[in-house]
Amino acid sequence: MCHTVQVHEPIDPLDHLVRCSWTPAGAEDPHLPAHAMRWLRERTGLVERTTPVAPDSALTVAESALPAEARAALEAGVGKENVLIERSDRLGRAGGMSYLDLMRHRGAGELTVPDAVVVPADPDEVQRVVETCAAHRIGVVPFGGGTSVVGGVQALRGATAAVVAVDLMRLDKLVSVDPVSRIAVLQAGVVGPDAERLLLPHGLTLGHVPQSFERATIGGFAATRSSGQASAGYGRFEDMVEGVRLATPRGHWRLGVAPASAAGPDLRQLVVGSEGAFGVITEVAVRVRPIPAVHRYEGFILDGWDPATTAVRSLAQSRVLADITRLSDPTETDMALNLTGGWKSAALRRYLKLRGISEPCLLVLGWEAASHSDLSLRRSATLRPLRGLRMVRLGAAAGESWRRGRFAGPRQRDALLDAGVCVETLETATYWSKLPALRTAVHTALSDSLSSAIIACHVSHAYETGASLYFTVIAPRSPDDPVGQWQRAKAAACTAISGDPAGPLGTISHHHAVGVDHAAYLPAEIGQVGLEVLGAVKAALDPAGIMNPGKLLG
Amino acid sequence: MCHTVQVHEPIDPLDHLVRCSWTPAGAEDPHLPAHAMRWLRERTGLVERTTPVAPDSALTVAESALPAEARAALEAGVGKENVLIERSDRLGRAGGMSYLDLMRHRGAGELTVPDAVVVPADPDEVQRVVETCAAHRIGVVPFGGGTSVVGGVQALRGATAAVVAVDLMRLDKLVSVDPVSRIAVLQAGVVGPDAERLLLPHGLTLGHVPQSFERATIGGFAATRSSGQASAGYGRFEDMVEGVRLATPRGHWRLGVAPASAAGPDLRQLVVGSEGAFGVITEVAVRVRPIPAVHRYEGFILDGWDPATTAVRSLAQSRVLADITRLSDPTETDMALNLTGGWKSAALRRYLKLRGISEPCLLVLGWEAASHSDLSLRRSATLRPLRGLRMVRLGAAAGESWRRGRFAGPRQRDALLDAGVCVETLETATYWSKLPALRTAVHTALSDSLSSAIIACHVSHAYETGASLYFTVIAPRSPDDPVGQWQRAKAAACTAISGDPAGPLGTISHHHAVGVDHAAYLPAEIGQVGLEVLGAVKAALDPAGIMNPGKLLG
Repeated sequence: MCHTVQVHEPIDPLDHLVRCSWTPAGAEDPHLPAHAMRWLRERTGLVERTTPVAPDSALTVAESALPAEARAALEAGVGKENVLIERSDRLGRAGGMSYLDLMRHRGAGELTVPDAVVVPADPDEVQRVVETCAAHRIGVVPFGGGTSVVGGVQALRGATAAVVAVDLMRLDKLVSVDPVSRIAVLQAGVVGPDAERLLLPHGLTLGHVPQSFERATIGGFAATRSSGQASAGYGRFEDMVEGVRLATPRGHWRLGVAPASAAGPDLRQLVVGSEGAFGVITEVAVRVRPIPAVHRYEGFILDGWDPATTAVRSLAQSRVLADITRLSDPTETDMALNLTGGWKSAALRRYLKLRGISEPCLLVLGWEAASHSDLSLRRSATLRPLRGLRMVRLGAAAGESWRRGRFAGPRQRDALLDAGVCVETLETATYWSKLPALRTAVHTALSDSLSSAIIACHVSHAYETGASLYFTVIAPRSPDDPVGQWQRAKAAACTAISGDPAGPLGTISHHHAVGVDHAAYLPAEIGQVGLEVLGAVKAALDPAGIMNPGKLLG
Repeated sequence: MCHTVQVHEPIDPLDHLVRCSWTPAGAEDPHLPAHAMRWLRERTGLVERTTPVAPDSALTVAESALPAEARAALEAGVGKENVLIERSDRLGRAGGMSYLDLMRHRGAGELTVPDAVVVPADPDEVQRVVETCAAHRIGVVPFGGGTSVVGGVQALRGATAAVVAVDLMRLDKLVSVDPVSRIAVLQAGVVGPDAERLLLPHGLTLGHVPQSFERATIGGFAATRSSGQASAGYGRFEDMVEGVRLATPRGHWRLGVAPASAAGPDLRQLVVGSEGAFGVITEVAVRVRPIPAVHRYEGFILDGWDPATTAVRSLAQSRVLADITRLSDPTETDMALNLTGGWKSAALRRYLKLRGISEPCLLVLGWEAASHSDLSLRRSATLRPLRGLRMVRLGAAAGESWRRGRFAGPRQRDALLDAGVCVETLETATYWSKLPALRTAVHTALSDSLSSAIIACHVSHAYETGASLYFTVIAPRSPDDPVGQWQRAKAAACTAISGDPAGPLGTISHHHAVGVDHAAYLPAEIGQVGLEVLGAVKAALDPAGIMNPGKLLG
């Protein structure tokens, strides 16, 4: 292993933008290459079928049930042109981006379509919309980027007469920057790349890059306790939140006066993760940092999952994690080699065999820093505990390859769906001592439910006391019952995570949130008492029960 | 300035214990030296009077109002010998350790004395006590080390018939250690030094050392969002909490299954800081670390408060803070020189003048590390941004002097009280851009209220976005109205912090909590909506309103 100073990639501000653009230059073709498809066929027995997205006209959409007087009141609040009831507008906010959401848009299963889409201009208009909806008992689904994969933006009515999606796209402003305190106030509808664009002239960055970065919003990050690919360096989103502004049926609520406080419980942490069930987050004060001047991403191959996770644990517990630290298990490493095909994988495999590596695990490490010397120091600190491991360095090319494709997953998924594949991800986290048991339990649950499935796993987030596990599942789609096929597999995985009579093996979600899909498993994690506490908070803020019906609390 | 490798102090396990002992070897004599008293007389016009602690027999203590049937039920739950109604037992839990608490024990103002002291053996017995008290509408004051300085353990009855202090001293066990995940489960009554003693055989440390360390408990740390002197390195106590177990009138509540989660709001952060108002914390799962092998504490003199705070800000924002980072303003630096008198202060003053330092600000930096090389690396990283500042290095002697006396403040306070001094501290925190305004506002409020007062200030905790301010006030005590004298000054300071019509300048407490003293200022910080949310949570967990009446929510 080499510990000399490396030439690092300089980041110029444009690169910073490129990495933020919706279709970045150099991003993968959304179509899967032929060799990848061939591998999938061999590995899963997939019989390719062309199952494209259904045209909108083929989908069943009920008429809007929004009562006329509620519509009039909403129009009076935000302007007639900002209350949309066209079929296509409503369809565009019909659910999020889970596998089942996408399948519903392909005609499988029932779509939940809001009765209208309301597009307020600012926090005050959001407050007005919420109060109007409370008065008329209309459900409110806060809608940011629509990237929820747990049903968080499904237009469920609950006990309400009708439900509107409150699209926050017009809340797209940088409200203020405090360069001394390094805090920026952003409106909730600002999407990831725009947050970076708005901060760029100030020389600042948020550094929050979940895979949904290109479409997801500041409000959504806060509402779901989002975690980004660089969260080891920049912190989880809840760590970045200095303040929030919430529009609740009970009125405006602002929180956040200091970086830390002992003035009672931290209520910001009650709003962060509230998933729209308490109110609509309209502004977030976030901690920002100077745009790093240099970065370096590198790939490594370690041998064996247990030694590799132990190595990542030692980095976390020595507090020398790289800003990006991502460890793939042998299946995911194999999949990466086969699907991307860009690393001359056969040659690499031969070399790994030659080096005696029998269970290759890809480790991507990435550092961002203010200077070459800072980066070198931090990189050396990270690499020091890895000395002595059986390991092959793939260098910066592999790291850059990962970096360029880091947001491509959702696009590749469309191609897989077209080809008749069942593809979904799920994630959890636990303490280090339980990590092997958790991985085995989820793996067994998934493989017992889905025959011929590829079940890949990686650690994307490591902490001193534990880590996340992120599973990717690829299987031939059931032609007859695609929805039930995945629902059964997902239920088995969730039961494996939280169904143990001795207590949950891990959390039901590390960064995807509860939404609809995980609501049934929340009681096992926070107890009946916890559920009652959340219910009491909701009743205090939303007595009519209009806020995001059916999410979080089920 | 020197950046070569220094010889660091090795920490041997015994030293680790010494630093934890209740009367540490080498700790200051609790009596103030003559030169310090002389300086106080000169500086404040103090006319010394001997006003010792009143004998317990001189204090007014009402008879216990605990109804016989409630007493019988409590005795049935924990054993007759663990329900104490002796006057001295009850007096021993009459309030905490604020200036006014101590003055009450000297006969000034009314003591709040519990009607009984209940001493349960374990979490199950605590649960039984809470349920018994709920059934009989008896108030419950969870009592750990009794070190609250904000009235957090005052035995107020609220609307209850009587109030008992539930002393957690028998919950003194280390429940479990998970060395892989580096998590220890400690019972709530374990005091700081005992936590270290219990973890020592496992080679682990909690590293949480607030000034109250010698007496305060794990449960109290959690209930008040405690922050330790080494929190820049080890984190605030809320950062260490992985899980909690709470005995509430509504039943047992356990939280914590993963290091991070997106399964709804983080309810642990609702329990941490709940100050006994929701239930009694009985166990806390805390993140622990290996006992550091070496430490080095150093003193520096910087010139001028503004450049010095800017320097600390640059350390925080470059993320190279020392584990202990404590910056005193010129008044506090002057006081340190005069009160401790151990640094040949006249000579030092001459030297500082010679070096052109007109406003000396003492900066104490301390690092703890696994090895000399780790410590050197971290120390170099900390010292690098300080290059170019006008600064005098006092070296390790000054650092060690501070370290040895770090827990002595409360003992010195007794000597000051004996001498007729009004001495108290208060603390707040805010974002960096507001720090100068906050310091000025509090300083002005205090100096307008208290003539001839010494008002010293330090930053004890720095974050990327802001810092804490800790004020020490020393003034001649009003012979006629010592209670009113401080109450007026404290009210003026609190109003300065939170009374601005444009919103609070900072938080009403950075690490002392709300208790009784800050309850009136909480609405300005969390809003009326926030208060209703806390009220709803309390009503859900404690419908009879028995838990720590009058604290947090007033």
